[in-house]
Amino acid sequence: MGDNDTTDSPAERYPDRATIRDVAARAGVSVGTVSKALNDNGRLKQETRDKVIAAANALGFRPNAMAQSLHRANSMTVGILSTDSFGRFTFPIVEALEERLAEHGIAVFMCNATDDPAREKQHLDQLLGKRIDGLVVTARRMDRRPAIAVPGNSMPVIYVFSQADDPDALCLLPDDHAGAVLAVEHLIDGGRKRIAHVTGPERFEAVTLRHRGYVDALTKAGLAARAGYYRNGKWSEESGRDAVVALFDGSNEAPDALFCGNDQIARGATDALRELGLRVPQDVAVVGFDNWDVMALAARPPLSSVDMNLRALGRAAGERLIAMIAGARLKGVERLPCSLVVRASSVPPPSPKTDKKTIEEDHP
Amino acid sequence: MGDNDTTDSPAERYPDRATIRDVAARAGVSVGTVSKALNDNGRLKQETRDKVIAAANALGFRPNAMAQSLHRANSMTVGILSTDSFGRFTFPIVEALEERLAEHGIAVFMCNATDDPAREKQHLDQLLGKRIDGLVVTARRMDRRPAIAVPGNSMPVIYVFSQADDPDALCLLPDDHAGAVLAVEHLIDGGRKRIAHVTGPERFEAVTLRHRGYVDALTKAGLAARAGYYRNGKWSEESGRDAVVALFDGSNEAPDALFCGNDQIARGATDALRELGLRVPQDVAVVGFDNWDVMALAARPPLSSVDMNLRALGRAAGERLIAMIAGARLKGVERLPCSLVVRASSVPPPSPKTDKKTIEEDHP
Repeated sequence: MGDNDTTDSPAERYPDRATIRDVAARAGVSVGTVSKALNDNGRLKQETRDKVIAAANALGFRPNAMAQSLHRANSMTVGILSTDSFGRFTFPIVEALEERLAEHGIAVFMCNATDDPAREKQHLDQLLGKRIDGLVVTARRMDRRPAIAVPGNSMPVIYVFSQADDPDALCLLPDDHAGAVLAVEHLIDGGRKRIAHVTGPERFEAVTLRHRGYVDALTKAGLAARAGYYRNGKWSEESGRDAVVALFDGSNEAPDALFCGNDQIARGATDALRELGLRVPQDVAVVGFDNWDVMALAARPPLSSVDMNLRALGRAAGERLIAMIAGARLKGVERLPCSLVVRASSVPPPSPKTDKKTIEEDHP
Repeated sequence: MGDNDTTDSPAERYPDRATIRDVAARAGVSVGTVSKALNDNGRLKQETRDKVIAAANALGFRPNAMAQSLHRANSMTVGILSTDSFGRFTFPIVEALEERLAEHGIAVFMCNATDDPAREKQHLDQLLGKRIDGLVVTARRMDRRPAIAVPGNSMPVIYVFSQADDPDALCLLPDDHAGAVLAVEHLIDGGRKRIAHVTGPERFEAVTLRHRGYVDALTKAGLAARAGYYRNGKWSEESGRDAVVALFDGSNEAPDALFCGNDQIARGATDALRELGLRVPQDVAVVGFDNWDVMALAARPPLSSVDMNLRALGRAAGERLIAMIAGARLKGVERLPCSLVVRASSVPPPSPKTDKKTIEEDHP
């Protein structure tokens, strides 16, 4: 973003019009920061604000266009189209996105197209009929999907937790590879040397990316990624239990750690280890993925897990969309960082970072 | 609905105007059926349709008002306001509601007020500024909440999975009492005589209602509701495990069945029973509540559970709102039926009704 590369510069494609992205590049800040600085909202250092205003002036950026669109904000609307059902992965995203847009006075229409192309078309027509100012497309799965065709490219579209088969689309995704590296490096730091990876079906891009992160972290530490230690199955507890039975059947050297592709697998694995008389984490450390409180906190012991920071993903989508509505031209796949939440399944004794949140409030 | 009681008849309160409710009462059908009949959509027998039209004519019901509002439908919008976060209970409701309204060409604005009254006010103002035609209020919890004040009562408001402290409000809720009766009668039908109830904190209305259903079903069967068999705790697996340890410590006669207030409690109870060497369901049958696939299907054995039919609740909210926008005046608490899904935790051998659905599709 700080790199003022003219090859792909929007200013080159639209030579008469500097965009918010150009301003951001020149000022060496993010598009979101430019938006905050020019709209005088959000907490920014005066120095940053001044730098942005100087960059905008130098480029002849028309703050009027921005001012106008934000003056209109109270009548602005954005559509959210889920191409699958809204599920536990999309809801935090949609919720945070809605919150971020509401802070700008932008209202959100939600539509749920449930994988039915005819219904999706009908929903899109309905949203276009409402003259929405932007569209966010989300999905439970991370499969690539056909790009949404907006007549005349009259409004910006963002894909979040979802990928379009169009290189000009802006797609926001969690950084699965880096998330896996975090998990495996944590296990290596804890002295584990025989780390297995138990995960879901390879047709999910997330499985491939997380596996690559696992292999890369092992390689970097000079450890081997043994073929027998990589196990694909379902995204279920049962699959986690089955993998443990196979990994610990005595036919191979037993692992001293499991990095699991989701928390359900990790939970099943933890149960199966206990039933084999193995202690977690003393004999085998376990790390899951998703940081799904229902699974991670109820497991015995509670699971360390990689958090995809879905709310941050939703807020980022809101930021990007506001910038695009204001004229920024953003494209490509942007991967946002995951973080690791450490609990008792990977460190003896329990880390002081142990999450004390209870799930009681989630009922009934 | 079929009872033409004039005391509370809207026709009496608004003598110049027969409403859709009057038509429904006269025809002996539901408001939804009247809506379908007069709008010529939905599948109805011609006989039903004729009966509705005759009733509408006899009452001088102005089909024009309905026709007009439905002619306008393509420009109609409805707001959904969640006074808590959108959670796993509200997703299916909101999703089904949105689907039902979309079938009528009605678009949905979603707002999430997260328990913050100032933010709720801001959201409400924003929705009113959009000139929405109706409002649906939902929440994760079933606490009573202050009624939403719509200036001039200019549009209908429905509370779903949420209750307002206003007797004139229409509130749609699952029938917790009847759901509990279903569960306990199923256990009694299976020959169980010592049925314990392990549930959440009493401050939840659902806990009180389900407990009452449990007591009523036992009483009807001539069985005692023993004081020591009713255990309140948290909505967690750990709480379910703790309850089993206490119930089976030998100080009382051990139960032969557990009716649990949610599936997390039921799952924890099932794990603890297995660890005590007791077989589920041979020694102790277990029934949960919520029919939450993630918990119910991953438990060993899979859990029988009461399903609140949240999607049906969402669809019903859509139906009622459409009727109210068309002029129906509905009020009071309406409780919709739960159903019981039988799996291996309560019947040996596994019932043919066992749910084979996998949760694999829910990822990542």
